[in-house]
Amino acid sequence: MNTDNPIPAMTEKKELVANWETLERIFIRPEDEASRTALVKYMEQILFGLHDFLRKHVGITREASLEELSRRFTESRISRNPRKKLTDVIKGIIEEIAPHAVNVTSPYFIGHMTSAIPFFMVHLQTIMSALHQNPVKLETSKVVSILERQVLAKIHRTIYNQDESFYEKHIQAPESTLGSFTDDGTLANLTALWVARNAFFRSRGRFRGVEEEGMACALKTYGYDRCVVLTSRLGHYSLRKAGGVLGIGSANVIPVEVDRNSRMDTRCLRQMIREIHKDSQKSRVLAVVGIAGATETGTVDPLPEIAEICAENRIHFHADAAWGGPTLLSEKYRSLLQGIEQADSVTIDGHKQFYMPMGCGMVYFKDPGAADHIAYHAAYVIRPGSVDLGIRSIEGSRAATSLILGSALEIMGAGGYALLIEHGIETAKEFAAEISSRPFFELVTAPQLNILTYRLFPPELREKWETGDREKRKKINSEVNQINILLQRLQREAGKSFVSRTTLRRKNREDTVVLRSVIMNPMTDMHIIREILDEQEEIYYSHIQTSGNCSE
Amino acid sequence: MNTDNPIPAMTEKKELVANWETLERIFIRPEDEASRTALVKYMEQILFGLHDFLRKHVGITREASLEELSRRFTESRISRNPRKKLTDVIKGIIEEIAPHAVNVTSPYFIGHMTSAIPFFMVHLQTIMSALHQNPVKLETSKVVSILERQVLAKIHRTIYNQDESFYEKHIQAPESTLGSFTDDGTLANLTALWVARNAFFRSRGRFRGVEEEGMACALKTYGYDRCVVLTSRLGHYSLRKAGGVLGIGSANVIPVEVDRNSRMDTRCLRQMIREIHKDSQKSRVLAVVGIAGATETGTVDPLPEIAEICAENRIHFHADAAWGGPTLLSEKYRSLLQGIEQADSVTIDGHKQFYMPMGCGMVYFKDPGAADHIAYHAAYVIRPGSVDLGIRSIEGSRAATSLILGSALEIMGAGGYALLIEHGIETAKEFAAEISSRPFFELVTAPQLNILTYRLFPPELREKWETGDREKRKKINSEVNQINILLQRLQREAGKSFVSRTTLRRKNREDTVVLRSVIMNPMTDMHIIREILDEQEEIYYSHIQTSGNCSE
Repeated sequence: MNTDNPIPAMTEKKELVANWETLERIFIRPEDEASRTALVKYMEQILFGLHDFLRKHVGITREASLEELSRRFTESRISRNPRKKLTDVIKGIIEEIAPHAVNVTSPYFIGHMTSAIPFFMVHLQTIMSALHQNPVKLETSKVVSILERQVLAKIHRTIYNQDESFYEKHIQAPESTLGSFTDDGTLANLTALWVARNAFFRSRGRFRGVEEEGMACALKTYGYDRCVVLTSRLGHYSLRKAGGVLGIGSANVIPVEVDRNSRMDTRCLRQMIREIHKDSQKSRVLAVVGIAGATETGTVDPLPEIAEICAENRIHFHADAAWGGPTLLSEKYRSLLQGIEQADSVTIDGHKQFYMPMGCGMVYFKDPGAADHIAYHAAYVIRPGSVDLGIRSIEGSRAATSLILGSALEIMGAGGYALLIEHGIETAKEFAAEISSRPFFELVTAPQLNILTYRLFPPELREKWETGDREKRKKINSEVNQINILLQRLQREAGKSFVSRTTLRRKNREDTVVLRSVIMNPMTDMHIIREILDEQEEIYYSHIQTSGNCSE
Repeated sequence: MNTDNPIPAMTEKKELVANWETLERIFIRPEDEASRTALVKYMEQILFGLHDFLRKHVGITREASLEELSRRFTESRISRNPRKKLTDVIKGIIEEIAPHAVNVTSPYFIGHMTSAIPFFMVHLQTIMSALHQNPVKLETSKVVSILERQVLAKIHRTIYNQDESFYEKHIQAPESTLGSFTDDGTLANLTALWVARNAFFRSRGRFRGVEEEGMACALKTYGYDRCVVLTSRLGHYSLRKAGGVLGIGSANVIPVEVDRNSRMDTRCLRQMIREIHKDSQKSRVLAVVGIAGATETGTVDPLPEIAEICAENRIHFHADAAWGGPTLLSEKYRSLLQGIEQADSVTIDGHKQFYMPMGCGMVYFKDPGAADHIAYHAAYVIRPGSVDLGIRSIEGSRAATSLILGSALEIMGAGGYALLIEHGIETAKEFAAEISSRPFFELVTAPQLNILTYRLFPPELREKWETGDREKRKKINSEVNQINILLQRLQREAGKSFVSRTTLRRKNREDTVVLRSVIMNPMTDMHIIREILDEQEEIYYSHIQTSGNCSE
C-alpha cells in the first residue's frame, strides 16, 4: 500500500459508492493492521491511563507565546485531498496540540471550574458518541429519551424532594417537564428567564403572549415601560446576556448589593422591589436570581429570605446553582443550599461539580407545567401530543449527555459525589486558614463552599495602608492590584500552577484585584496548596519586588 | 475483593482523600485487572468495529411499547452507595439500553438528518473529551482556541472565498469573528438573528442599543411598532423560536410563500417587503432568511435574488445552510448554493453533513466585525482586550468540537466530503426516478439536494381523484393522508426501515402528508431503497388495504 496517498480510492466516486472495501477505509475501520495497532495503543493510554496520559502530554511546554502559536495556525484552505491518516491526526493532537493545551486536570490547576474528570467519564462519552442518539425526538433516541426523563427526575428530587406520588405521576408523563438539558449554564439560565418572561407576559384578552407578539407588545398590553431582573452584584454575566437576548435589555438585569459576606443584601432587595413597583415607575420585577455558589467567590445567597420576598411579591425566583448544585448530594453540607427547594427554577451544570465532560447544563422547574410557556412544534418532529423532548427546550438536536450523568450517578452514588464535595469544602477551609497564617497574604472572601479569593499584600504595604489616609490607601490598593495582576500572570506563565484572578467591586470600597481558587480536584491537597502559595511568595520576591516596577 | 460492594472505601471520607489507592478506583483507573480486561473488550468493539457493534446491539428489538419502556425507568432516587461498577454500567448500556435505542446508523434508516458517522469520529470525540479543554477562554484551552480560529477560517473561506490577505488579517486577530461554534443549528440561527437585531437597533443618541435597553425601548426610539423576519414557509421552526426568544415575537417571523419547486417565491418576498415598509405600517423587516437545504424538502431558496432584494432594501440576509452547507465542498454541486457568499450570516451544522457527533452547530459572518454587536465581558474571564472566544458567543463553557471538525477535514479532505455529498444527491435522484416508475407512489417534492418527499397513492384512489370534483378530491386526499400516517408508523414499528413523515402545507392545496427521505448514509444504495419501497407496498397490501380501515 502506498502510504504517501493514504486514501487513494477516495478521489473516484464510483469506488466510494460501489467498492465496499474502499468505503470501509474512511467509514468503517482503520485502513490497515499497522494503523489499528497504533490507534489501539493511543486509545488504551487515553482510556485506561487518562491521568498519566494528561500529565505526560498536556500543557508540558513552557509558555509558547500566543503570537508564536498563532503564527502556526494560519491555514485557511481545506485541501482537496486528505492530508493525514487518522493515526497521524491522533499522533499530531498528542504531540503537537496537547503540549500547548492547558492541563486543566493537574491538581495545581485551581483557577477555574474546569478540572480533572474521572477516567470513566471518557468511556461514557465514547459510548454515547458511538450510539449517536439525538434526544430532540423519540424517533432518533427512543429509550434514551425515557432514560433522560429518569435522570431529570433524580436531580429534581434532589432539589425539590417532592413525595413519591409526585414523581410517579410526572417522571414519564409526556406533558410534564421536570427539567431540561442544555449545553451549558448560560443556556440553562437563559431558559429559566425565558420561562419566567413568558409566564409573566402570558396571553390576556386578544394579546397572545410575549412569545408570539414580542416584548414591545407585551409591555404595552400590560401597561409597563420596562421589566427588570434582580440579582446579586456577583451574579454570573450570563444573566445580563440572557436579559439582552430575551429583549428585556441587559441593563435591566440590575445588581443588588451584597453584604460583607458577599451574599445578596435582602434589605436592599426589598427596597429595590418597592421602588421599582411604585406605580409611577411603570416598571415590574420579572424575576429575582439567587446564587448558590457565585462564580467569583463561591458564596451562597440567603435563599430562604429571597424565596420569601419573591413569594410575597409574586415574582419568579430562579436559583443559579450552576456551581453549587451538587452540594445537595452531601448530607453534611446540603443545608448550605437551604431554600433552593422554594425556587421556581434552578440551574445546575453537569460539567462542573458532576465532573462530566464539557457540554452539560441543566435547568429544573418546580412546576412540571412551567415549561409549557416555551413549547414549540413542527410538522416533521415534536408534533403536538408527541413525547419528543425537543418540544420544550432552547436547543433542537443535541447529544444524549443524560446517558453520561445517569451512568455516573450509578457508578459514584450520591455518597461518591458527597466525598468530592466535602473534600473541596474542607480543603478550601484549610486553604483559607493557611492564607490567614501567612503575613504576605490577605484572605478577601472566605469560602462558603469551595471557592475563595485572596491577594498577596506585602506586610510593608499593609502597614502603610493601615496608617494612611484615604488618598494614600487608594494609591496603595492600586499598587497591590498591579502586584496581583502581575503575580497571577507570571505564575501562569511559569506553567506549574494556576490560580485565576478577578476584580471584586464592592460598595464604598476600591476595586480589589484578587486571586481566585476553586478546589474541586480531589488530588489537590494542602501540600500542593502550600507549594502554590510558596511559589507566589517566591515570584513576588524574585520578579516583582526586586523589579521595582510594581505598576507594570 | 468483595464484588458485592464494588467501591467499598468510598463511604469514608478519610480514605478518599488520604488513601491514594481508593481514590484511584473512582478517578484514575479500573478497580482491578478483570474489569480492565472487560472494558478493553467493549472499547475495542466500539472503537474498531463501530458499525458491526451498532448492527449487533442497537435497536435490534422489535417495538417494545413506549408504555412498557416507560415503566422500566421510574426510579427517582439517587442511591447513596454506588450501584454498579463501570464495567457493569457499560454492559448495561450495551445489553439493556442499546437494543431499545434507535439504530440511526443503519442504511435503512433514511428518515432523519441523523445517520451513520465514520468510526474515526468516535476516536476524535474520545480524545477531545480526554483533553477536557473549554474554549470559552484561553486559560482553559490555549492552543485549542487558536486551532478553532483556523477551522472557522477554513469554513468561512469555503462559504465566502475572500482573498488571501483577508484571511491573513482576520484568521488569528482577537478582534475579528469569522464565525462561532454553538451546540446546534437552532442556536446558530438564534445567534445570527441576535446579531441582526442588535445591528439594526444599534445605539443612537442617548439610546444605548437594543441589547442594553430591550426591544420595547428600541422600537420606541426608532419609531416602529414592530419588526419582522421573513423566511420561506419551509423555514425551520428554530427561526420562529429565535423570534420568540429574542423578544421579536414568533408571530413576527412571517412565512413567504414558496413556488411549485418549494423555493421561496421572490416576487412574493418583494411585495411583502414593500407592504411592510409602507410608512403607515410602522413596521420594519429586520432580516430575511434564505434556506439552503430545507429540513422537510431539502430545497434551496433562490439565494442570489434574495441577496439582491436584501441589498436593495438594506436588510440583513441570513442563509440557513444547517443542512446544505457542506455541499460547498463538492465542485460538482457547489453551484446549487450560489448566492450564499452574499449572505451576511450563514448557519452550518457539523453533526449533519460534516458527519460529526451530536453537538456542533456553527454560524459564520461575512463581516468579521458583525459579532461585536453581541459582545459580553466579565471580570474573571473574557475581559476586554482578551483573546477569549467566549466574548462573542451565545454559550459560555462548551466542548472543543472544533478539534473534531479540524481533524475530520484533514482525514477526509474536501474531496472525501464531496464524495459523500455527491452520493447523496445522485442516489436521491435515482430514488425519485424509482418512485415515479412505481404506480403505487407519487413523488411530491423532487430532490434538489439529497432529500425528497413522496407518498403512497394507490392507483385506484388516484384514478378517482383525477376524475373527481373538488369535494371528492378533498376527501380522497384526506384518506391518502391517513394511509401514509399509518404506513409510516407500521414500517417504523416493524423495525427494519425508517422514513419520516411530515405535512406539507401549500398555497391553494390541501395539506399533504408525505413520506420524507434523507440520503446521507453512503451505505444506502438503490438496492436498499427498492427494499424499503417494496416493504411499504407490502405493508399497504397486508395491513392497510385489507383492514378496510384506511381512515384509522
